[in-house]
This record gives sequence, structure tokens and C-alpha cells, in this order.
Amino acid sequence: MQILVLGGDGYLGWPTALHLSALGHEVAVNDNFARRRYDEEMGVESLVPIATLEERVAAWFEVSGRTVKSYVGDLCDAAFVHNMVGDFRPDTIVHFGEQRAAPYSMIDQAHCIYTQTNNIVGTLNVMYAIADIDRDIHLVKLGTMGEYGTPNIDIEEGWFEVVHNGRKDRILFPKRATDLNQGVVYGADTEQTKLDARLATRFDYDGVFGTVLNRMVIQAVLGHPLTVYGDGSQTRGLINIVDTVECIRIASENPAERGEFRVFNQMTESMSVKQIAETVAAEFPGETTIEHVDNPRVEAEGHYYNVKHSKLEELGLKPTLLSMTLIDHLFEVVERHKDRVDLAAIMPTVSWRATTSELPQTATGALAQT
Amino acid sequence: MQILVLGGDGYLGWPTALHLSALGHEVAVNDNFARRRYDEEMGVESLVPIATLEERVAAWFEVSGRTVKSYVGDLCDAAFVHNMVGDFRPDTIVHFGEQRAAPYSMIDQAHCIYTQTNNIVGTLNVMYAIADIDRDIHLVKLGTMGEYGTPNIDIEEGWFEVVHNGRKDRILFPKRATDLNQGVVYGADTEQTKLDARLATRFDYDGVFGTVLNRMVIQAVLGHPLTVYGDGSQTRGLINIVDTVECIRIASENPAERGEFRVFNQMTESMSVKQIAETVAAEFPGETTIEHVDNPRVEAEGHYYNVKHSKLEELGLKPTLLSMTLIDHLFEVVERHKDRVDLAAIMPTVSWRATTSELPQTATGALAQT
Repeated sequence: MQILVLGGDGYLGWPTALHLSALGHEVAVNDNFARRRYDEEMGVESLVPIATLEERVAAWFEVSGRTVKSYVGDLCDAAFVHNMVGDFRPDTIVHFGEQRAAPYSMIDQAHCIYTQTNNIVGTLNVMYAIADIDRDIHLVKLGTMGEYGTPNIDIEEGWFEVVHNGRKDRILFPKRATDLNQGVVYGADTEQTKLDARLATRFDYDGVFGTVLNRMVIQAVLGHPLTVYGDGSQTRGLINIVDTVECIRIASENPAERGEFRVFNQMTESMSVKQIAETVAAEFPGETTIEHVDNPRVEAEGHYYNVKHSKLEELGLKPTLLSMTLIDHLFEVVERHKDRVDLAAIMPTVSWRATTSELPQTATGALAQT
Repeated sequence: MQILVLGGDGYLGWPTALHLSALGHEVAVNDNFARRRYDEEMGVESLVPIATLEERVAAWFEVSGRTVKSYVGDLCDAAFVHNMVGDFRPDTIVHFGEQRAAPYSMIDQAHCIYTQTNNIVGTLNVMYAIADIDRDIHLVKLGTMGEYGTPNIDIEEGWFEVVHNGRKDRILFPKRATDLNQGVVYGADTEQTKLDARLATRFDYDGVFGTVLNRMVIQAVLGHPLTVYGDGSQTRGLINIVDTVECIRIASENPAERGEFRVFNQMTESMSVKQIAETVAAEFPGETTIEHVDNPRVEAEGHYYNVKHSKLEELGLKPTLLSMTLIDHLFEVVERHKDRVDLAAIMPTVSWRATTSELPQTATGALAQT
């Protein structure tokens, strides 16, 4: 298959491109390097050093003999998107090309407007390119389990069937797409990213982009208390990075029917933030403590959380659950790069209740909007 | 009360400003005249001639002795919105300032992106200004009954209570706002707009902005067949313009509680498109025919439609239902201005299934994005 990975230079986009290329698919990646610019803006860096996209693509060719084509440009540029889709003629478009961090969007008004505009306009441009060039292109759109919130009822894959005043409905807008609502991803590498240092993907630990498990592993290695937001009873879906790239393969190779809109919940297990901290603390060979800090987020604690996530497993996903081995491996990765850690970046600085937050490392915080 | 009407130069914004001012509220209007520019772009005009905002405000002062302050600027300009809210310090903001016509957004990709960006960024800027300046400002946000679609279940005011696998929830994001989901508005004037020709509001009959009942009245007067899209079994909520302005008064004078998010369905009766055509045909003193044309919209026909709309009536709304007198009055208004009608503009030209549609009157159709 011809598969175009949007946001293909990012934490998950790059390993996904390698995974699909290794399996023999013709893969192209698109990126505008916005994610690297967020690092510059915030004065932080990936824990694991990452090569440029050019170096990555060259390294992959050296290692595997396979070519990954790259399209550098902004999804908000309609003409660029149209030309890219027309040139590559993908069977599947995997869309990782949105600004994904809620805290980043909450920094201030400019970051909120940037996030909304970037994500909505980019996705509309992709949909128009599909409509204009080939309506059979299968769109695999990444989203987040966060879209559901924490309702008091079971979270299905897709919409609920509603019974109300004795009448029933299930509201769907038919489009040829697969919507992947992803849990919190953890892990540092996949089979392919491990092959060469230049193929490594990013590993974020800062308070804005760093996700909970990765951040706690770093805190343990550095002798920093594991910081739990609020009472830690918030439960979230989790998924290992090796399962993420496999889920994308499964969704791509088993496309939705024409006119079908599918929703998969892309996660393999649920844990509370407190349980995650306790697991990391228990596995860490040295001393570690758990510290509760004021929750900078607006989120429910002590809520009901029961998520259905069977559809990807029915299509063949073999979940890689959180285990001692996996955590041990993460300790090693962090140990190797711990001189790169900037401790000031770990603690949350963005309050979701204020309209403006300071970033730890930026004095002016001017956002380059492209 | 201090009430700021966003989009206060438009079809409903202007009569709403007059209605609130006549009742003794301190009213300001904001507009960037985007609606007048859409006319220029499409080569059409309001059936009823309309004065400039400056002339309107001056005429209202002559007629009533009351001042309506005007703020000319774009809601997408964050600094402008912030300064306007800080200067006027409203108790209530009534938000009519979005691009409202689905067919306009469907003209092509540029119009789609413009509509999404304009509406989302404008509303976010208003919300940030409220958060920064005074969180007690009550936001009365206009929306459309179209947001619900045509589900097979009763449409409540607000969210449904969902029972699923034996558990219950009702999902709400608390904010101090009233969300008015409005039906199709018909009618040409209100008590105040009738007082002086310079106070008239616009009356649209074109295939893009003209709503169904107004358009059919014009077709009858001109001896044009009444055009029904598809089989006409689509049912819609209706509301007269005099009830619209009264609903806004009621919502403004009875604000939501702090942290409360309310939804009112702003409509007074439901009719199918076919019933509307038959009513207009029956009332028209001359000959008229009904013609079914291919439906350019993507919408269900022959659907279930049962909308609850009791909350505004509980707060005092006395509905003005569609009657012979009302339709007769519309025939008169159209008769008076029928030399201004451009017949080519009446028929639908925008197909919701194509990515690009021609407008009847514009050769190039370049959209001036502000």
C-alpha cells in the first residue's frame, strides 16, 4: 500500500513510518517541524537526541535499503496539501499532524487560537484533498481518549445507542475514515528506531509535552519525587509505543468500507495516575518517593472509567502490557541520557484555569505562528 | 443592563439592538460588515434597502432619543475584542457575529476554511475577553437547530440524560452561557425597524442566505414557482423575527447562574418545507405553483422531528405563530421592493456534495478574507 504519514517527524509519526516501511509498504512522511519549534520556544529538548528528518530518512535507507519520501510543508497550506496528495496518491493517509498537547493549547490565548486553527484547518485541507483527488483514500485520523472525558457510563468504540422517551437512535456522519482515540503513550523505542541512533524518536519529559509514565521514569532515575497531580485517582487508558505503531498498521491494512466511519479506542489497559507512580516506584531499584502536587489541569478525580477497546484486538493486536521488563528498559534509556535533563522543565507550569501561564524556560514566549 | 450585540449590523442583530434599546437597556453593537461584503461578492442585495450602520444609529437617535454605541472591527482580532469588552463593560454579550449560512460555507474549500476559522477564532476571542475582564459577563450565544441534525429521538433543550448498560450520565461543561439554538427565522421587520426606512433590516432571498419562507413569499409575488428542495418532507423549526428579538431580551434579562450552561431551543413551531410552500400558496391572492427541485443539500427527508421548546415560553415568550396576517404583510413588503429582485439569485447553486460550486453572479468568486 501507499501510505502517507502526516506529522511523520514526531514522537509517534516517525516510528509508525518506519514500522510500515519495514513491512514493505510504500511510505511517505509529511511534517512542517512545528514540534521541533515548540521545543525551541519552550527551551526544552527531547531526552533522547534526535536526528533531522533528512538524516533519519538517509539512515533508514542505509539500514534497510528502503526509501521513505518526505514532503516538508504545512497542512494549513491548502495548495501544498493538494499537491502532496496528488503527487503521492496514497491508499491511506495516517494523520498525526495536529498539535496534540492540551497544556500547550492552554499556555495563553495565542496558543489556544493557534492550536484550534492549526488542527481544524489542517484536517479540513486533508479532507478536501481527499474529496478532490480520490474519495477512496482511507483516512486514519489520530485523536485522543480525552475526547470522551470521564463520563459516568461505559465508553464504547464510537457513539452510543441512545434510548430516549421510548425511541432509539445512533447518530453517525458517514465518511470513509477510521478515528483512533488514543490513550496515553509511553515507551522510548520500537524495533526499527533501535537499529541506529539516527533513527531514534523523541522522548519528552517536560511538563507540557511529557506524558505521565515517561515523566515518572525520569523522575525516579534523577532522584526527584514522582509527582502525582491531585490525589492521583484519575484513571487513563495506556498504550505502549510498540502497540501504537502496530495499531496504525492494522487500521491501514484493514480499511473502513466506503462511507463507513469507524472508531477504535487505541489503548490496551487502564491505570490510575497513582497506580502508575506506585508501579514505577516499585520497579525502580533505588530509593524513590511519591509527591502529590496541586492539579494544574481541570479534570475529575475519583471518577468512573470503563472503556471498551476490543476492535483492534479483534483485528489482531497482541497487547504489550506494562511490565517490569518494559519499565527496566525505560530506566536504562533515561540513565543513558540523564545529563540532558533540565529539571526545571519537569514540573507543570501551565494552569488550565488561568488565561495566561508562564513557561519555565521562556522569558518572552512569543509564538511563531506559521 | 449594558448589552453588547456582536454582529449588530445583521438581519437579526440590528433589530435585536433596537428592541433592547427601546426597552431602556444601554446597547452597543459590533460588526465588521462581513455580511455586506458577502452580498458584494455574490452580486446580490437585500430585497429591502438598508442604510449604513452610521445612518441607522443616527436615525435611531432621531426617532427614539436613545444612543446605540458602535464598535467597528473583527472578532478575529483578539486585541480589538479585548479593548471593546474592556471599554463597554457589558453585563451581557449577545453573539450573532458568526458566518451563519451553511450554503455559504459549502461554496468551496476557501469558504469552508473561512467560516470555520472566523466562527471559532471569533468566539474564542470573546470567551478569552470575558475570562480576562469579567467572568460574570453573561454570554448569549446564537446557534442553530441544525446542530442537532434530525435524530430519531426527541430533541431536548440541552443534553440528553443517557442510560447505558444500566448506568446514567448527563454530560455538561459548566460555563456561564446561554446557548440559543435557533430555528429558521422569517419576517421582514419588528416594531422598531418599521419606524423609519433607515431602520429597516435586511431581507434576503438569494439561494445562499435566503431562508425558506422569505424566499417562497418572493417567488409567489414574482410569479415564480415556489421551489421545494427534494420531496419537501424535511421538517424544520420556525420562528418569527419579532419573537427572535424578544427571546434575546428574555435570555439577557434572565441570565444563567454562575457556572451554569443553559440551552434554549429558539423556535415556536415546526413545519415541513412542503407545508410551508402550501401555506404560502394558499395565502397568496394570485396564481402560484409548487415545483420540486433536486435537493442541493445533504439532509434527511421523511425523518422524525420532535423538538422541545418550552424554556423560553416558561420565561415569558408569547409565540407569534405563522398566520395569514403575517404572510399578507410579507407579500406587501415584497410587492413594494419587487423591482429590486434579481431572479437569477433565487435558485440554489451551491451543491453540498461537490467541493466547488459556482455562484450565479460572480465570475471569479475570489473571497476577500479579512
